[in-house]
Amino acid sequence: MITHQEQQRAIAAANELYQRAGLLLREDERRSVEVADFGLSNLRSEGAQILTLVQTGRLGVKLLALTPHQTLPEHWHPPVGDDPGKEETVRHLFGDIYVYVAGPDTLTHGFIPEGKDAVYTLRHELVPQPGDQLTFSPGEKHWFQAGPLGAVLYSFSTVARDILDQFTDPAVQRQTVIADEE
Amino acid sequence: MITHQEQQRAIAAANELYQRAGLLLREDERRSVEVADFGLSNLRSEGAQILTLVQTGRLGVKLLALTPHQTLPEHWHPPVGDDPGKEETVRHLFGDIYVYVAGPDTLTHGFIPEGKDAVYTLRHELVPQPGDQLTFSPGEKHWFQAGPLGAVLYSFSTVARDILDQFTDPAVQRQTVIADEE
Repeated sequence: MITHQEQQRAIAAANELYQRAGLLLREDERRSVEVADFGLSNLRSEGAQILTLVQTGRLGVKLLALTPHQTLPEHWHPPVGDDPGKEETVRHLFGDIYVYVAGPDTLTHGFIPEGKDAVYTLRHELVPQPGDQLTFSPGEKHWFQAGPLGAVLYSFSTVARDILDQFTDPAVQRQTVIADEE
Repeated sequence: MITHQEQQRAIAAANELYQRAGLLLREDERRSVEVADFGLSNLRSEGAQILTLVQTGRLGVKLLALTPHQTLPEHWHPPVGDDPGKEETVRHLFGDIYVYVAGPDTLTHGFIPEGKDAVYTLRHELVPQPGDQLTFSPGEKHWFQAGPLGAVLYSFSTVARDILDQFTDPAVQRQTVIADEE
């Protein structure tokens, strides 16, 4: 759960990052940034800001913005019916991003969110530079963490059904609840 | 057929346009721009410069650059085997672009390339602004023409098999021949 004020602050932070990434966005796009706390109610630590540019029955294009040191929890894209699962290529555009995938523990720049050792199982760190791309096969687990500048990434994928994504952390709920103001 | 010199000049022009669009590209990407004359040997009039960012068995992301007044010939993306055909969303990033689709003749800003009336059948003109997007269904015919500034567009699509695209102009050959220097 996040407050309306937290949501608006996160939308503004995302738009600031998109601007620093040199992206030209329409006003309706700037207003439509999704703020996701993954049901963990700790947005600055674990969460993401997501702007959907294209969403059809066959493909999705999103812009992910992470605020400084924000972590997008470990997850994967499972098969759905006839679909073998979402295939996703991320392209790093701006800032610092650390990407964690299966492999030997090389975690150096990032950190496991406090008290969350059990639900961040991947410790193999990749540090793409702006312009670099990584492709995740369907079912391939991954998580991201921004460095001190925050980060902006394109996500190009086959059809996205975010609500069906699977997370290592059983506490995750993909839909974010926006609380009424106190 | 184009000469090696024409090819190199077109790659440089495309990179200049990508830079003006504020795009951050890797050096290997800048070198890999495809120059397509569609077999018509008149690149400044009919052709395109295409940089493929993502190409998997399921999706494609490309950056199209058109030099001032260059026309990308009328074409569509047919079904291929089990695939109903390429679905494509273009996002206008920079410059002037006129897009032609089925509908009443509203051609105003662009022009039909000289002597080519018969093979540009669509005259319904759309003038997207930077940040605007258009989605073409599989099989939906379309052609593009840049205005005086040239143009840069993202193309987000399901799997691209350019070589199987179909063109109204029977003279089109999708593979471009690069001539040896005289």
